[in-house]
Amino acid sequence: MQGNPWRRLSRRVAYANPWLTVWHDEVIRPDGRPGIYGVVHFEGHATGVVALDADDRVLLVGQYRYTLDEYAWEIPEGGGAPGEDPLAAVQRELREETGYRAADWRVLGGCWTSDSVTDERATLFVARDLTPGEPSPDGTEAIQVRWVPLPEALAMCRDGRIMDAMSIVALQWVALDRGRSSGAG
Amino acid sequence: MQGNPWRRLSRRVAYANPWLTVWHDEVIRPDGRPGIYGVVHFEGHATGVVALDADDRVLLVGQYRYTLDEYAWEIPEGGGAPGEDPLAAVQRELREETGYRAADWRVLGGCWTSDSVTDERATLFVARDLTPGEPSPDGTEAIQVRWVPLPEALAMCRDGRIMDAMSIVALQWVALDRGRSSGAG
Repeated sequence: MQGNPWRRLSRRVAYANPWLTVWHDEVIRPDGRPGIYGVVHFEGHATGVVALDADDRVLLVGQYRYTLDEYAWEIPEGGGAPGEDPLAAVQRELREETGYRAADWRVLGGCWTSDSVTDERATLFVARDLTPGEPSPDGTEAIQVRWVPLPEALAMCRDGRIMDAMSIVALQWVALDRGRSSGAG
Repeated sequence: MQGNPWRRLSRRVAYANPWLTVWHDEVIRPDGRPGIYGVVHFEGHATGVVALDADDRVLLVGQYRYTLDEYAWEIPEGGGAPGEDPLAAVQRELREETGYRAADWRVLGGCWTSDSVTDERATLFVARDLTPGEPSPDGTEAIQVRWVPLPEALAMCRDGRIMDAMSIVALQWVALDRGRSSGAG
């Protein structure tokens, strides 16, 4: 019963830009009737990092999200190039957006951000032992940087000041790990 | 500095189906240079629910995710119709996918699932006091239902058996609430 109950009859590229491709598929649905499926294919693998300093503060970046027409505070994130190692991608993004490098990297886990419509896969990290440097944001980024105590960052997730799902998942993982290991997280 | 640093020069509909519209925008980027932005606009508001029974088990639904070509265990989820109240939408989705109705509903919070490309907004709920009934999945859904103890559901989020971001966010909010209120969550 875990096999694919969908059957694809045809696929055409409905839209493409350097970051995503939209496929319009003609399908046979699970109930056997004809239907369509629009799939948003991401060219890159998403990454994000909870960067913690020696005082257990989290590095947040603020930027205007064009898609939602909202200002957003998030963990540093970025899409890797196709085939790029997620760790290399997230290290680059942290450096570009904030200037920081980290000596200690650990994978928190992975998620699919919006699997009814997209195939975006994300890998989330925690980084410690940070060294500041000069940021070099790309031309699509106008970024503010802010240090927030971890409990405050979690409160921001809970009350809507942080809305980005990848940020929320990653910060929750850090908090839950800490609960399990009695403060050693 | 929190104003919109992007300027839209033009917008055209690159693709549309009943669930989403893809806009291709010509823009001036934050650095003042010309660029493009492809935005995936969701017609409906996403919802999901952690449904808990009297034994503190979570109701999971299994379905094949066409987008990722993967089988997925998730909390019951669904997109509301444009303008539909998220609570009404999630109650309908829970009933259709699993047959269950719940007497006790609470909002956990909201998130943006993939804000670099989409404007999808989600509201997540916890429901208790469940009454079984007959499911009535729509023709795009071939669904299995499974009850899992909450700690096991959280372990599934952590080890990759649950990858859906909305499911992870919602389950972890329930767990973190419980930590704060010493088991009363």
